[in-house]
Amino acid sequence: MEVEAKFKLKDGVLEKIEKIARFLEEKEEYDLYFSHPCRDFAKTDEALRLRVENRIKMTYKGPKVDNETKTREEVNLLIDSFENAVRLLEFLGFKKFKSIRKKRRIYELDRAIICVDKVEGLGDFLEIELRVPEEKERIFEIARILGYSREESIRLSYLELLERLNWKV
Amino acid sequence: MEVEAKFKLKDGVLEKIEKIARFLEEKEEYDLYFSHPCRDFAKTDEALRLRVENRIKMTYKGPKVDNETKTREEVNLLIDSFENAVRLLEFLGFKKFKSIRKKRRIYELDRAIICVDKVEGLGDFLEIELRVPEEKERIFEIARILGYSREESIRLSYLELLERLNWKV
Repeated sequence: MEVEAKFKLKDGVLEKIEKIARFLEEKEEYDLYFSHPCRDFAKTDEALRLRVENRIKMTYKGPKVDNETKTREEVNLLIDSFENAVRLLEFLGFKKFKSIRKKRRIYELDRAIICVDKVEGLGDFLEIELRVPEEKERIFEIARILGYSREESIRLSYLELLERLNWKV
Repeated sequence: MEVEAKFKLKDGVLEKIEKIARFLEEKEEYDLYFSHPCRDFAKTDEALRLRVENRIKMTYKGPKVDNETKTREEVNLLIDSFENAVRLLEFLGFKKFKSIRKKRRIYELDRAIICVDKVEGLGDFLEIELRVPEEKERIFEIARILGYSREESIRLSYLELLERLNWKV
């Protein structure tokens, strides 16, 4: 279970993070999302993704289970080949759906992970993440320190945000 | 594309292989096959398999494309966790279907791979395998040297053979 809250990056927040959190790494992430052969992921609120960064990962994301955060089941698989994963999934009837590119700066603060994301075509965001479902309140406590109220939490994924942006265009 | 022919292991064949081929390794393989969420693999002649040996692999097998051999499209993915792969596939609607255990002795002869398999509940078999589709005849040439006519080639997979065995019980 991944407990996560997302916020729009506001002025001065990055500076605050740089001051109080420990910088871990910066990386580029390329995400390719797939549609299911016989299930509408948009309706079931699920996702299947291949991610390329230093490593290559296949990830299933289950439906969100909390009404304030992006908390959801997540299963990760490290794999050895992006190309073979695409071929395998396509043979099984999954279809390439949408890709997302972002630059991600990762910090650690009080056992929580803070990601500052520059998402291509979408803008700058902040994700605070914990692997302990019981400690949701700690995420909002960190958010408060950074200047966010819990109402500012965005439950939509980058994929969903990009979809909505397309609808408006 | 994997070009492969299978034969029932006959008396004296193992001794012949030991004499003329180069022994590479012996390993135990555990295969777990999955059914598709909305496609009947038995009808489409496809398969999705997790294999555990020294490494862990996810494999898609396409329909057989040759009427004398088990030649078929094959996509392999090395993965880091059997348990997570099962969870990910189950979340996507795939279901555990059947498992096969075998002890496999692997030999090399003239750039072909020869596998001598002791399949639990099924018996002893021989598979001759090449990665070069154009050289199907070389497989039957090796088979001939080992004492097999091309009519003895078994096109059914171990999975299919086990299924038929169950029908008869």
